[in-house]
Amino acid sequence: MLQEKSFLSIARDFKAVFLDSYGVIKNYKGLIAGAQNTIDFLRELKIEIRILTNDASRSQQQQAESFYNLGLKGIEMHEIVTSGMMAKQFLQDKILQGKIGYLGTENSAHYILQSGLQHISVRDIDLHSIDGISAFVFLDDEGFDWNIDINKTVNLLRRKNIPVIVANSDKLYPVSKNDVAVAIGGIAKLVENMLNKKFIHFGKPDSQIFMYAFDELNQFGSFSKNEILMVGDNLNTDILGGNKFGLKTTLVLSGNTSAEDAEHQIHSSGIIPDFICPSIMC
Amino acid sequence: MLQEKSFLSIARDFKAVFLDSYGVIKNYKGLIAGAQNTIDFLRELKIEIRILTNDASRSQQQQAESFYNLGLKGIEMHEIVTSGMMAKQFLQDKILQGKIGYLGTENSAHYILQSGLQHISVRDIDLHSIDGISAFVFLDDEGFDWNIDINKTVNLLRRKNIPVIVANSDKLYPVSKNDVAVAIGGIAKLVENMLNKKFIHFGKPDSQIFMYAFDELNQFGSFSKNEILMVGDNLNTDILGGNKFGLKTTLVLSGNTSAEDAEHQIHSSGIIPDFICPSIMC
Amino acid sequence: MLQEKSFLSIARDFKAVFLDSYGVIKNYKGLIAGAQNTIDFLRELKIEIRILTNDASRSQQQQAESFYNLGLKGIEMHEIVTSGMMAKQFLQDKILQGKIGYLGTENSAHYILQSGLQHISVRDIDLHSIDGISAFVFLDDEGFDWNIDINKTVNLLRRKNIPVIVANSDKLYPVSKNDVAVAIGGIAKLVENMLNKKFIHFGKPDSQIFMYAFDELNQFGSFSKNEILMVGDNLNTDILGGNKFGLKTTLVLSGNTSAEDAEHQIHSSGIIPDFICPSIMC
Amino acid sequence: MLQEKSFLSIARDFKAVFLDSYGVIKNYKGLIAGAQNTIDFLRELKIEIRILTNDASRSQQQQAESFYNLGLKGIEMHEIVTSGMMAKQFLQDKILQGKIGYLGTENSAHYILQSGLQHISVRDIDLHSIDGISAFVFLDDEGFDWNIDINKTVNLLRRKNIPVIVANSDKLYPVSKNDVAVAIGGIAKLVENMLNKKFIHFGKPDSQIFMYAFDELNQFGSFSKNEILMVGDNLNTDILGGNKFGLKTTLVLSGNTSAEDAEHQIHSSGIIPDFICPSIMC
Repeated sequence: MLQEKSFLSIARDFKAVFLDSYGVIKNYKGLIAGAQNTIDFLRELKIEIRILTNDASRSQQQQAESFYNLGLKGIEMHEIVTSGMMAKQFLQDKILQGKIGYLGTENSAHYILQSGLQHISVRDIDLHSIDGISAFVFLDDEGFDWNIDINKTVNLLRRKNIPVIVANSDKLYPVSKNDVAVAIGGIAKLVENMLNKKFIHFGKPDSQIFMYAFDELNQFGSFSKNEILMVGDNLNTDILGGNKFGLKTTLVLSGNTSAEDAEHQIHSSGIIPDFICPSIMC
Repeated sequence: MLQEKSFLSIARDFKAVFLDSYGVIKNYKGLIAGAQNTIDFLRELKIEIRILTNDASRSQQQQAESFYNLGLKGIEMHEIVTSGMMAKQFLQDKILQGKIGYLGTENSAHYILQSGLQHISVRDIDLHSIDGISAFVFLDDEGFDWNIDINKTVNLLRRKNIPVIVANSDKLYPVSKNDVAVAIGGIAKLVENMLNKKFIHFGKPDSQIFMYAFDELNQFGSFSKNEILMVGDNLNTDILGGNKFGLKTTLVLSGNTSAEDAEHQIHSSGIIPDFICPSIMC
Repeated sequence: MLQEKSFLSIARDFKAVFLDSYGVIKNYKGLIAGAQNTIDFLRELKIEIRILTNDASRSQQQQAESFYNLGLKGIEMHEIVTSGMMAKQFLQDKILQGKIGYLGTENSAHYILQSGLQHISVRDIDLHSIDGISAFVFLDDEGFDWNIDINKTVNLLRRKNIPVIVANSDKLYPVSKNDVAVAIGGIAKLVENMLNKKFIHFGKPDSQIFMYAFDELNQFGSFSKNEILMVGDNLNTDILGGNKFGLKTTLVLSGNTSAEDAEHQIHSSGIIPDFICPSIMC
Repeated sequence: MLQEKSFLSIARDFKAVFLDSYGVIKNYKGLIAGAQNTIDFLRELKIEIRILTNDASRSQQQQAESFYNLGLKGIEMHEIVTSGMMAKQFLQDKILQGKIGYLGTENSAHYILQSGLQHISVRDIDLHSIDGISAFVFLDDEGFDWNIDINKTVNLLRRKNIPVIVANSDKLYPVSKNDVAVAIGGIAKLVENMLNKKFIHFGKPDSQIFMYAFDELNQFGSFSKNEILMVGDNLNTDILGGNKFGLKTTLVLSGNTSAEDAEHQIHSSGIIPDFICPSIMC
């Protein structure tokens, strides 16, 4: 099962392909080699493409522009599904009044929290006047002073029992070949740990984002789960989530999981991809 | 927010109501008082009803018959959604060959594993001849000798790295006013703990079962999430899952969560129902 | 058992009393009312006193001076036992060469890391030249830029597999009546979570600090465990640790655990103090 | 660091050697090859020997007899330290009245619970008459019906909030070359998981057992921690515990950790032994 295969020969048997973004299509240096060719190949075969990414820092439009700027042509806005969109939908469905507090940048707050409600950065919250705050969102690891504002968040959430949403559950993200940075999901975990509470996390491996992509896809035709291939570089998010949702899964070795780690991780985690490929190239 | 309200006055504003079974409609003694009246009331108002239950021991038909035998009339088979059905669907989508090993009763194996593949109880597995086994399912806490067969399961899964499914993630279930029993989800957790692996769990609070009920419901009309009320007696399954899926939620105090526990649990967990009612009666 | 008793009437039956510091002897405002009287009372009865505190920011001498400055007279240096001292001893026993990296203040580094080895703040570490670093210590939540230096620590420990020590395992500490701050134990937990590793934590409830105090005490006489009373305001550190070490335990309600929380927390945690007192006063 | 060395050339530099039992001295087939020679070699050099084992099923005397019967001569009773002895000491120090409930065999109950108090097997407990039960001990994975008596234990501990002790925290134990069995520590974990409580666990890696062996050893001379070598086949118990206590540690590859696993486990866990040897032979 651990024998590596050609990605294109696998993908051609499916009616749709779901791709993770970082580690599959792009990395810290730019586009993964061959990404454009593979996208073009899938388009020619009329195979639908969706990109499922745990990211709450950029809107669909900003994501699409970013691919374009990296040199990847032809990704449409509606083909991008982010964990931030899931958080946005939740807020619209569930939080109907009050002000939404957040940890993150003005930009991510702008696009995620545009639900008609006001929003306020932790930085600007006065802990003596929190009656109006009806929910809290962990958006992004930037846009605030960690030392001051993480502590402020802990105390806000000790004083007021409100729904807390994590717009991207990833604990870390890569910043170079070897190095990573703590992501907002990691900071949220720290705060959960302080408070002994469980927040509402969005993003792979949770089914919500797969469900959204699946429903959206089915507006363009009739796709059953076994006609869709999920492609990712992370066993714990992409492959676990894809497997659980009932999709076929491919682990690519162009990102977070090296060839040497793959066998060991699969064995020790019990998370088993249907296929393994070096990358989406050829 | 913790003030208790009349269930009927809440429910009448929704187009559909999702109900947990145990602790909401029935308990160890039989039907919850007023269950039939409430069901009839919802029917009269043309409010759709679905019952979402973490149970893998009985088929939809057996569940429907069981309600009928308890005296609750008018529950149709298609209105029942079980975690076992999610497990069955997963097996059909993902496991296309080989033999499925299981821990549970012949009966639950019969209806969950009817996917064309053979199945074999752990009791009958010969650990020296396990090549053909392609997946494993935790079905039920009965039908095997715990001491012998849990150890056999641990060793089977140490020898062979295959997908492992938990058809009901509940850790325990009530057997009388005060007492509980370890459920198959608790046994699966023990085995995960032995192996340091993460199995694929089905059932509330996971989104899969809500998604299934939501999609099925929408074949009978057009329902948006905020037109649906989820009703349950457990914060960690019914309310957390309902909230995350974007439904309005009602905690009832007729089951697992007593009036005195509710306030404390809500505060300490951060899982906040939209409404609290003594029961579904009146 | 939850009936509250007079502290002095309990303590007089013991040959030694171990006291937590924060929440028992002092709090954010200064000394707890009656602390001096109680200390004097114990001295008169020739009851030995030791103060066991999860703190790595100050040396024994600094701790003793701090009590003196708050107005508490007669606490001797040797009567103070800190989690930082446990970390220091570990480093002396186990790390015999190389340079010790740390996260914390110059001051805490100075007194904990005086083992003949060099030490270097994460701030000053060049990630391209880490060959000489032989161990790492989480000391203190101050003295560094959280955003930059926590990420740097994560990447240092990804690149180099060295012993990592947490000199104070507390996740948070109180800063005012209502508010807390994330402590270095919480930051260490975040980094452990990023790396999926387990560091070596020092401090209550771990037995090491009780053992140290017990051995030191027995240089002044012959004390058996049942002649010693552990007094603290935290079930999870003071009472759990004291119980496990075999001491009698008293929960005081003058700190982290309010009267209303005590009964619930004892019931839900299963950590049961032998006595409960409002405070050490009278 | 991962280069393997000769055990005898390492051990000869220490004044005392602490050895794990299973996987170091013996295994499922009997004595590890060369065990007698190594013991004799250490005796000749006047190096003190202690055997530290997570076991609550047999008394010191039964352990010593068992070594003798396997063919290992010259192990004295006082040289054996078990997690069961730690549990026994705790019960003597802390539980001064009432009846002690237990899960395990009559034999283990006999020697651990001989503290003057009565004891009663879960099997014989009447859940309607539990007032007199003052503590509960998880002793052994045998001597009861798992299905019936684990459920009975869960309900007993739901009804009565008493100290709960786990006399051996190991989750599993080997029964043959490939196979393992769930140990009492695993069953205790299952019950903790059901109840959301934390029991008091005894055994490596906890410091208590190291402390006991260290204190007992120092009645025979003056031994500092860096003069003692801890030898074990488990990173998570023997090596973690030894490291934390301040001892030098040797991982042997004759038991639970294979040569191929060692490097990966050390890297992923961050638990680093000072030495690695194929076995204690030569």
